[in-house]
Formats: sequence, structure tokens, C-alpha cells
Amino acid sequence: MQTKKPANGMKDITPREMELRNYVSGVIRDTYRAYGFTQIETPAVESISNLTGGAGGENEKLIFKILKRGEKLDITSAASADDLADLGLRYDLTVPLCRYYANNSASLPTPFKALQMGPVWRADRPQRGRYRQFTQCDIDILAEPGNIAEIELITATASVIDRLGFDPFEIRISDRRLLDAVAEAAGIREELRLQTVIALDKLDKIGEDGVRAELTGIGMSEESADRYLKLIGSAREVGIERLATVIPGSEDISTNLCQINEACVQAGLPCKLVFDPTLARGMGYYTGTIFEIAIPEFGGSCGGGGRYDNLVGRFSGQPCPACGFSIGFERIILLLTERGFEPPVSGNRIAYLIERGIEGQRLGEIMQEASSARAAGDCVIVERMIKNKRFQKEQLEAMGYHEIKEYYNG
Amino acid sequence: MQTKKPANGMKDITPREMELRNYVSGVIRDTYRAYGFTQIETPAVESISNLTGGAGGENEKLIFKILKRGEKLDITSAASADDLADLGLRYDLTVPLCRYYANNSASLPTPFKALQMGPVWRADRPQRGRYRQFTQCDIDILAEPGNIAEIELITATASVIDRLGFDPFEIRISDRRLLDAVAEAAGIREELRLQTVIALDKLDKIGEDGVRAELTGIGMSEESADRYLKLIGSAREVGIERLATVIPGSEDISTNLCQINEACVQAGLPCKLVFDPTLARGMGYYTGTIFEIAIPEFGGSCGGGGRYDNLVGRFSGQPCPACGFSIGFERIILLLTERGFEPPVSGNRIAYLIERGIEGQRLGEIMQEASSARAAGDCVIVERMIKNKRFQKEQLEAMGYHEIKEYYNG
Repeated sequence: MQTKKPANGMKDITPREMELRNYVSGVIRDTYRAYGFTQIETPAVESISNLTGGAGGENEKLIFKILKRGEKLDITSAASADDLADLGLRYDLTVPLCRYYANNSASLPTPFKALQMGPVWRADRPQRGRYRQFTQCDIDILAEPGNIAEIELITATASVIDRLGFDPFEIRISDRRLLDAVAEAAGIREELRLQTVIALDKLDKIGEDGVRAELTGIGMSEESADRYLKLIGSAREVGIERLATVIPGSEDISTNLCQINEACVQAGLPCKLVFDPTLARGMGYYTGTIFEIAIPEFGGSCGGGGRYDNLVGRFSGQPCPACGFSIGFERIILLLTERGFEPPVSGNRIAYLIERGIEGQRLGEIMQEASSARAAGDCVIVERMIKNKRFQKEQLEAMGYHEIKEYYNG
Repeated sequence: MQTKKPANGMKDITPREMELRNYVSGVIRDTYRAYGFTQIETPAVESISNLTGGAGGENEKLIFKILKRGEKLDITSAASADDLADLGLRYDLTVPLCRYYANNSASLPTPFKALQMGPVWRADRPQRGRYRQFTQCDIDILAEPGNIAEIELITATASVIDRLGFDPFEIRISDRRLLDAVAEAAGIREELRLQTVIALDKLDKIGEDGVRAELTGIGMSEESADRYLKLIGSAREVGIERLATVIPGSEDISTNLCQINEACVQAGLPCKLVFDPTLARGMGYYTGTIFEIAIPEFGGSCGGGGRYDNLVGRFSGQPCPACGFSIGFERIILLLTERGFEPPVSGNRIAYLIERGIEGQRLGEIMQEASSARAAGDCVIVERMIKNKRFQKEQLEAMGYHEIKEYYNG
């Protein structure tokens, strides 16, 4: 049976939305290019073992797995899905980037500044505004250990958001190691730390009481949970310069954040850079600075990233510093659509309506006229006149064709 | 085990190739936009039943199938791969387009002129220059029964190939119904006709004797095979105006091809339009005009298409005329790469090399200078100076950064 619906949880993109998506991709690509980022692409499909190595966190449960083919597919002796699949659709662009860098680093510059834009897939429960295929847009700087990487990622990304017309917006910044230092000071056991980060990451959604409940739920004492949350509050109060006065062992973190802040402000960042010690970023792989874009019109985060110095090494066997920023492409499309944004149009849009019966040479002459207008930069749509010409014209006007030329026989 | 290789038969795209791909996509998009085509996108994944309905021909054997998830996956009672998979990766853009049109036609203009560019997947045996994931680029005009569709598709596509700098090239044209008329005149049984077309499609590769052997191999008598090939030869000799003098029942085909030819020539087609009655186009779904791009430097076809009036109806239940042209995107990339084509670069490329130790405010000042240059249209890459500065500069020059500014402490 043929079905006309797209696959469950996926969507068809209309011409109108596609224009917007192309416009946004263009702004992103042009802006990052000006910062020296070069675009790369990896296959949509990765070896299943690369997708299930732990770097994907919860996303690893949402992989679309691809059946082995030919003789390799042995259904009778298969015990689980893992025996049947050898490939999977990627759920993010970070894991493939690390594999890419490990595979190609010999021919890539050091440091390597990569831009990726492409679809990823997650077999999530379908819900409004979230689809099982969606576009991600990541920039990453590999092999640069210093905070010049953070500064470039933040200024470049702020420039993208600014050029897309969002004003005001802010970038929140913190350091994953600060949460370790806080946990240490609060006396939280080492093995609870990743879960603590994951709980804190939900602060926006469940509030401080919700986080406290999660913390005690994972086995933390009430006192530790309170101390943990209180220390984070103190960190916010004193700010990045005086961090070490409230969080023991946070001197380097303080210096790093101050340097990033000074450079970004001096560089003319088009938004506020706000220290937010509650910032957690859910993924387990972060090892240093973390950041997030917040646009007031949009409740949640609209992109984020951070430093992850241990991920490339899983593929290459060699440690390699890395830092990345992911823009929430789909959320930006949603916000721009909701505010009725129309991408700029270049050239006039002209429609030629041609009566049936005009053929061959005469039709060719009209086509030639169209070619000339197109060469001059206009969009020209050529159509046969239909009986209901009024309806046809309305349709064309709705597509932006306000100038309509009609051609009749004889 | 993590592997750094891309999945078997797939490839990582380098920054250099990506620049070329973006340039070519841009030319394609801009040119077709000027002709009134609007871009759409469908999910990479389709219901497996949509991919196995017969429209994909041999490609249906090459589908990457996706495992059912959760409770729907029942391994113990599965007899074959078909019981395990509910989705598949698309192998072309035509089947998804027909589904898309059936699903969205109420909100689309009539006629609908669609541009699609996107990856497709085929689990083919990997071979040099052919990958299991590759980009296709199709334009289609739906709901236009007249040959104005063919004329627009041909002139628009010729304009793309011309703008990409190929010269000379030609477009070959024929009509699938002509092969039916020839088969009829040669006394070939109805049930052999699709196989006859598929055999003829191999003419470029296996020559006339090869085709004759294939024809007798599928059960055609030697006389019929000879008559078939001879009639095709006669058709070429007499040309489109006098087709009916050698192929009975080809009057309408002749008129149609003459009208298309006249209009295209008059419109100033930047290439020859050549009638080629050996043209077959392997897919079973063509119902009328067929065409192909030939670039002499490249042996085989570099794109093609035709009219397929019966495919949309499989999804919508309503007949809908359709005609499309697919550009061989990957072949064009290969040809441009082989001839050393460099996409045009806009703005200067300037590298700032900053000595370690420059931090905070001073670093920010340099970043600000970079921002100003970027705003003025330049590409500025900012990097820490490394010990081997000479190597670093060579790397930057190789990336096109010929202007290098150095910043030192103090």
C-alpha cells in the first residue's frame, strides 16, 4: 500500500519554509565563513558501534538502526536488534565530527575550524514542533587548547544571531568544572556528579525545588543538596572575578571566564555575556567552558555548546582539545516563522501567461524574452493560461508574482 | 569498538570539495529560481511500502531498510527482512516527490514547479567514484500536460549547465512512445517492451551487437531484433519532421518533438538539441518525451529525465501529468574537480596570528579589528601563533590566506 503521508514524526517542507531555511542557512554559512570556518559533511549513516559508545547519552536509545544486508543478515540466530543492524542514522553532528577529524586530521589544518549543517534523526515520541528528522548546525574548533577557541565561537555565533535580527538576546556562560568544584565543596560523592549535572540541567523546567527533589532522589542527602544549591547561588552573587572566595579551587576557572568575558566585550559582542553558574548542559562529555544562547521571546535555550577535550581521542587514540557551539536551527526557523519574518527577495517576480495554441517559434520568442529578463536578474514564471484565469492570477500573486504579462494567439 | 572510517561505501566530504558543492548548489538554486521553480524537501526516510511499489525498478533491491522499534519489532516470528523493517532510506527523489505532491497538492500552485536537492542512498556494490550516499538534484513540473513543461525543463537545465562553464554540451531528446511504436512496427510482443527499453538503454556501454544479443536473450527472434534496430536507425536518418514516414503511428510524437525543438531553438538554447531515437532512459515509468544531457568530456550521460504521467496517481488516486529533469550532481562535481575548477571567492582572506600571552582586553581589541574587517566583507581567521610559525603560514597560504598579520606581546 502506498501512503501519501510522510513517515511518522517526520515532515514535508513547503516551498515557503524552504525559502526561509535557505535564507537562514545562507546567513549562517556566510557569517561563519567570514570567521574562517570551513564547511564539511559526513554521511548520514554511521557504523552502529560509533553511535553506541556512550558519547550520545540518552540519544543512544533513540537510534534508527539499519538492517544488515545480504548474507550478513541472519534472522534465525539473531537474539536482539543489535544482531540485525550494522549501521544507524546519526543522532547528532558531534560524534561524526570526532570520527571525521580522527580519519582526516592529516589533511586538515591545525587548528581546524569546522562548520556542519545537516539532518540528524532521533526516534523520539513525536510531539508538536519536534520532529524525528531535524537540522542541526554546529561549529567546532579542534586542536586549540586555549580560550581563543571559546572567544571565536561565542563572537561568531553572536554575530549570526544578531544578523538574523534577534534583539535582545544573551549568551550565558559557565564552566562544567565549576560544578565539579561546587560538588566537591558540598561533599557530593564522585559517582553522583554526572547525575547531579543532569538534574541541574532541568532547572529551567522544574525549578529549584524540582532540582532538589531530583538530587535527593538520586541518593544525595538533604544537607548536601541544599549546600550544593546554595553554593551555586553564592557563585552567581560574587561573579566571575571573585569566584574563588566562595568556591574553593575555582581560581583557574575564574581567570578563564574573566579572560573570555574581557575579550568578548572588547570585541564588541552584540549581546550580553552573562555568567550563569546554574548552567549545566546535559551531555556528559563537556570538560570545561559551557555556554548557551537565550532569546527572551523563546523560553528555553536556542543553542549551546562547550569544551569537550576527551571525545576525539575515542576515535583517534590521541587526545585532542575541542570546543563547539550548536545553533538551534529548527527553533530559529520556528521563531522567525512565528514573527512573520519574510526573507529578502532579489529581482522582480514576473509571470507570463500564455494562451494555449501558441506553439513552436512564437512560444520560443516569448521564452527568449523570459530568458533575457532572467539574465537581468528577474524571476520569470511561464505558464499556460487556464480557463479560470482569475484564480490563476490570485495563485501567482500569492507566490509574489505581482507583474503579470499575457500573451494571446494572433 | 569505535572506527574512524566512514560507513562502507560512503565518504567524508573535505572543506575544499564542500566549497565546490556549495558553489554548484548555489548556481543550480539561483538559476532554477529565476525560472520560477521553488525548492522543497522531503524526509530522507520513507515508509517501506512507498519504496517497494515498483516505481524504483532495480533500485528497489538496493534499499537501506530501517528496523522497526519498540514493541513493533518482533524478531522471533520474523520470516524475512520485510517483517523487521517499516521504513527505508529513499533511493531517489522522484518517488518522494510524487508522495509529497499527493499529500500537499491542496496548498500548492497549479502547475507546481519543484526543485529538490538532497541525498539518496543505494546499497550498491561500492566502486570507484560511486558512493552509497550521493546527492541528487531534480526539477519537476507537475500538473502541466503540455510540452511547455518539457521546454521549460530543457531551457532551464541547459542554462544551469552553461552557467557551470560546460561548453560544448548537448541535450538529446526522444519519446518513450516512439520505442513502443518501433516495437509495434517490428512485431515485438507487448510483454517484452520494458525489457527491450532496458536493453536499448545499454547501447552506449555494450554497442549495437551487445543490444542485439540482449534482445534475443530475452526471447526476441533475430528478425524482430534486427527490424527493431533498423527502424531506430531509419528514425534517426529521417529526423523528427518526417518520423511518420518510417514509423507508423508516430505523427503526434513528431509534432510534439518539432514544437519542443522550435521553441528551444528560438529561445536561444545554449547547446544543441539532438534527436536521438536510441535514447531509452532505463526507468519503467516514463510515458512520453525523454531527454538526457551529454557533455563530451564525460563519456556517459550527465543527467536526464522525461515525462511520467502515471506516477503521482499511485499516491493520490488521481491522474496527474508530470515531467522532470535530474542533473547528475555528483558527476558534475567530479568533472569540475578533474578540470581543476576553483569556485570564485568573495572578499580577501586575512589571517591574524596572535602570540600566546595576549589575553583579555588586548585580545579583544584584535578581535574587534577582525570584526570590522569581516563586516567589510573579508574572511579573517584568528589563530594563536605556534612554535613552527613557518609551517603555520604555509598551511594558511594553502587555505588561501595570503595576507598574514602578526601580533606580539608588549
